[in-house]
Formats: sequence, structure tokens, C-alpha cells
Amino acid sequence: MFIDDLPTPALIIDAGALEANLATMAQAWPGSRLRPHAKAHKCSSLARVQQRFGHTGFTCATPREISGLARAGIEADFLLANESVDPARLGAIASTGATVAVDSDETVRAAARAGISKVLVDVFVGLPRCGVEPDDAARLADLARSLHLEVRGVMGYEGHLMMLNDPAAKRERVTLAMETLRDCSEKVGGDIISAGGTGTWREHLDTGITELQAGSYALMDTSYATLGLPFHQAVHVVGTVISRAVGWAVADVGLKALGMDHGNPEVDGYDVWFCSDEHVTFAVKRDPDSHGAPTFLPGVGEHVLVTPAHVDPTMSQHERAWVHRDGLVVDEWAIDLRGW
Amino acid sequence: MFIDDLPTPALIIDAGALEANLATMAQAWPGSRLRPHAKAHKCSSLARVQQRFGHTGFTCATPREISGLARAGIEADFLLANESVDPARLGAIASTGATVAVDSDETVRAAARAGISKVLVDVFVGLPRCGVEPDDAARLADLARSLHLEVRGVMGYEGHLMMLNDPAAKRERVTLAMETLRDCSEKVGGDIISAGGTGTWREHLDTGITELQAGSYALMDTSYATLGLPFHQAVHVVGTVISRAVGWAVADVGLKALGMDHGNPEVDGYDVWFCSDEHVTFAVKRDPDSHGAPTFLPGVGEHVLVTPAHVDPTMSQHERAWVHRDGLVVDEWAIDLRGW
Repeated sequence: MFIDDLPTPALIIDAGALEANLATMAQAWPGSRLRPHAKAHKCSSLARVQQRFGHTGFTCATPREISGLARAGIEADFLLANESVDPARLGAIASTGATVAVDSDETVRAAARAGISKVLVDVFVGLPRCGVEPDDAARLADLARSLHLEVRGVMGYEGHLMMLNDPAAKRERVTLAMETLRDCSEKVGGDIISAGGTGTWREHLDTGITELQAGSYALMDTSYATLGLPFHQAVHVVGTVISRAVGWAVADVGLKALGMDHGNPEVDGYDVWFCSDEHVTFAVKRDPDSHGAPTFLPGVGEHVLVTPAHVDPTMSQHERAWVHRDGLVVDEWAIDLRGW
Repeated sequence: MFIDDLPTPALIIDAGALEANLATMAQAWPGSRLRPHAKAHKCSSLARVQQRFGHTGFTCATPREISGLARAGIEADFLLANESVDPARLGAIASTGATVAVDSDETVRAAARAGISKVLVDVFVGLPRCGVEPDDAARLADLARSLHLEVRGVMGYEGHLMMLNDPAAKRERVTLAMETLRDCSEKVGGDIISAGGTGTWREHLDTGITELQAGSYALMDTSYATLGLPFHQAVHVVGTVISRAVGWAVADVGLKALGMDHGNPEVDGYDVWFCSDEHVTFAVKRDPDSHGAPTFLPGVGEHVLVTPAHVDPTMSQHERAWVHRDGLVVDEWAIDLRGW
């Protein structure tokens, strides 16, 4: 079967591009130096490939990502890099030996009560989201230890710096954020300093962190593509043209097949006008100089390749992905870590 | 069980608000005059309630919405108000007697080949998406009849007019679009003129259409709330505060629990800063005059009520919805019509 034979919208993964991305990252961040983020793909089959590239731990954003990986038979050093006060869900991952991020008395107590044995202190390093104030990190670690939790170290996600495109400014600001995190590490104890993401993989090579949390590098999207990273687009959604007018065409890849928070997807070399629940409307580019852009619209029944603007919420829209090599479908992977 | 006992993020439906919305619409558009759109909720249990309010047909955007409703035991006059050239998926709904929208030779031939017996000619009425050029509608109907398809009439979706907020302009433009559709109806034949949506439910009371396709009215969202319609917000996502800083708080309702194409959700009376995969960051409103807005942030473990900006792609992110009356959970509905 070829990708053109799939029912659409079809989430497809280019095995060659995926493997190249995993190889590039594993060379810079080998073994336990990389803790691949499962939230970017929500697919235990893909996680298994990441394990084959030498990585021994996983970053997860939801308890179900961890319990799903465990259910798929994957044994690893799991990190819930997110806060939770849900006793049932924390309890459900306790038996996997997962480490859980904490940033408040409430999250420390919830972890202890649920039978979690290991925590990382999540430190605020500039992104207004989770993370304890640096000045409070040591106290929180002491509280955790007083409740018989092992404090493995610190984490801090500089998500606000991922998309910076000025190399000097990016390096300076990431370095500064990580000085804060390293300071906290000394006060908190433990041997893990976990941070970063795909957008700061290079800057972190000399920030002193012990492990990088990166997810998008595996599959990529049009937002990360703007950063000039050495990772290739490995995921697309195949669409079928279902309607064509004189000035535009419509394919069956809509809001419910895409993550839309980073804006419209790309459709081959066309101008995307808008997405509806089950449609993307696109047209020939207005700019006649557009290098290599198609000058005519595809017909009804033809296929187009849609590239998502944000990979993580695109993956979670699909039940399965088809893996292909040069268009030949070689595997079908369940997106089995969806939900919470 | 109360909604505060649910694991979060939890999609909840207020049964009272839902029933009030269904009653209001059924009074204006009774019985077969309304063809409720299943894409807005993707839930066969909710469709069953719509049937109890007297409606005998459903509008669907995907074959799976139709086959899922049929599998749930719902017998109705199904309309696939969308184009498809997928022989397997069209074939799978043929036995339900579904009517299928067509707007090209290819879609007519695909319907005939798949064993579909009835079509509506989908006419372009101003939204650059699907729909045949009005001048070509009669020829397409003839082609369909030549392939032994019953042509039940016409449909046309004026989606570009849904969010117009000027009543006079809206009435004028909807009327004009429907003049086109009525003209086509005369040339095409059949007795159905199907159009509209929640945003134009009132304008259509005197445009001469035979049935309204509306979906969002049942559950509503913050976008439709700007139109001053007589429908109440019936769906929310309950979130738990998992982190709190001096200036902001974070709840566990993120991109993967929401449709984001209409922008950020609302979180009680707070200012929403941004959403991440599994987070929404919010703060006390800057404007001290904000009427009734809370002046302090909730603590870790407390719940917030998140209102989506776009209901359709929010529903399709969830496996289930909990139905409640005044906070008491009275039912659990599977969102069983997801996918394609």
C-alpha cells in the first residue's frame, strides 16, 4: 500500500526523516542526556524507536502518557514534567517508578500521598507557567524529603525562549535562565538538571544541564522549521481534494485533523485561505515569483500534503499514523497516549 | 458525584442549558424544519436528545458521524453535507439511506458508484469552500439523475455570514444568498432547500428555505456568544489549578482539550494569557473596573470553569462528556462520532 491509497485525512510519518532526526539528536545528546518528550507524538511505537536510539528515559506531560508507555511494555525512567494533584492519576503511575515534577506544597503532598517516591523540583526560569520561585526551591526540596520523597534534582522549562531567532540573544538568555537553574540545583541537591527543548537544543550544549527535554525534533512542524534546525519535516497529513472552484480548491484536512494554535497549516506550495472543521481552502499563490510554487490547482480526487503548524496538538487529533518509506506504507502506529 | 469530583480536564454539559437551547430552536424550527448538525457535538447520546425534541434528520460532516449514529441505533434522515470521493466510506453509509452533497462530476460519480441513492446539489452561495457554481447546478442534477440518483434538492452554506453582527447587513446578505439558492432549487428540482446555521437561524425564518442546518446552538461557545443569540452556554471544561505564582495561575486545560482556531478560551472572570499543550495560564484582570471579575487567584487544587472559543473542535478532543444538573453529574456520554 502507498500513502496515496490511504483513507484521508491520513497522518503519515516519513520513517527516513524520523530516523535522521533521531540520529542527529542522539549524536548531540546521547543516551540518558536526552529525555525525549512523549507529548510531541503520543505514540508508544515511536517511543520504542527513540529507545532504540539509546535513550533510557522519557518526559511526559500527562499521567496517561506514562501509564500508556508502561502498558505498551516500555520500561524506562519516566518523568512527569508537569504538576498534578490528582490522587488517582498519580497513584496509577506510582508503580512505574515515575519521577514527578513539583512546584508547591500542594503538589509535594499530593505526590507523597499517592505513593510517588521521587520528585524533581520544577523551577520558574522565565516562562509564566509552572515552576517554584527560585528562592523557594530549597525549602520545597526539604519539605519533599521530610515526606520521604527522593529529590532527584531540578527542572526548568525556558519555553519563552524556544522561538527566539536571534542566535546571540537566544544564547545569552538561555545561559542566564540556566544560571538560575544551576544555582537552585546546588541548593536543592540531587544530580539531575533537566531543561530545554527542540528550540534550544544547541544552546544547551554548554549550559551545564544534565539532560535535555525535547519532543518536536522527532517529527517537526512549520513553526520549528523557521528556526533553521538540522531536523527534517517527518509528519504530514495527506488530504484529498473534494471540491474545486475557479479560484480555489478544498481538501479534507480541517481543524479536527490539525493543531491550530500556531495558525494555518501549509498545503504544498499553495496559499492557505482558511480551515473549517473538515476543510482547508487553498489557492495558487498570488505572487508570480514564488519559487517553484504550483501554478494550477489540483483536481477533485487528487491528493495534497498538509504540513501542520504545531505538531503536538496535531498528533493528538488522530487515532493512528501510517509510517512510510518513500511513499510505501510500512507500518501503522496507534496514537495510543491521548487523553489524560 | 459532583462536577468538582471529576478528573480534569473534564468536558461537562449543563443539561438544563442544553434542553433550553433545544427547546428554543425547536419552537422556531420544529420537526424536520431543523436538521441538527452532528459535527458540533459528535455525540450520539446528544443526538438522541435532539430527536426527542422532534427532529427527524441529522446533518453530518463526515461518513463516520453517520455510521456512528446508525451504530448507536439512531434511525433518521441523514445528510452528509460534505463532499466525498472515498468509495469505502461512502459505501459504508449507503445502507443507512443517507443523502450526500455533491458539487462536481467527480462527487456525483463517486456517490453513484458507492451505492448512494440520494443526493443534494451543494451550491456556492458566497463562502469559498464547497458548492457548485449556480449556473452549473442544473447540469449537475441532470448528470446525477442520469446515473439513477434521486436529486432531493439543493443546499448552500453561507458560512461567511454567520458572525456578521450588523442585523440589517446580515439580513440583506443572507436574503441575497438564498435568492441564489432558491433560483437553483427551481432549476435543480426536488423539494429540499437546506441552508444556514446557528448564526443565521433568525434571518432564515423568511428566506424560503425548507430546513436549517444548525449545530452550535445546542452547546454554544464564546464566539457565538458575541452574537446575542437566545442560546445559553451549555458546555465547559472543568480544570484544576496545578500551579500558582504571585502574578498568575495555571490550570490543566490546554491546547489538547480545546479547539483553538477561534483563539483562547475564557477562564471564569480572569485574563487568559496563553495556552500550552496541557496548560492555560491566566491572571486577575488588569482593568479594576471589570464588573464582577475576581480580584484574587484560585489556589492549587481549586477548580476553574473554562469556556471554549469554538465548540466543534473542542468536543472532538474529548473521549467523553459528563452531563450535570446544577453540578450534580447525572450521565456520562461518549463522544463517539470522532474521526473520519
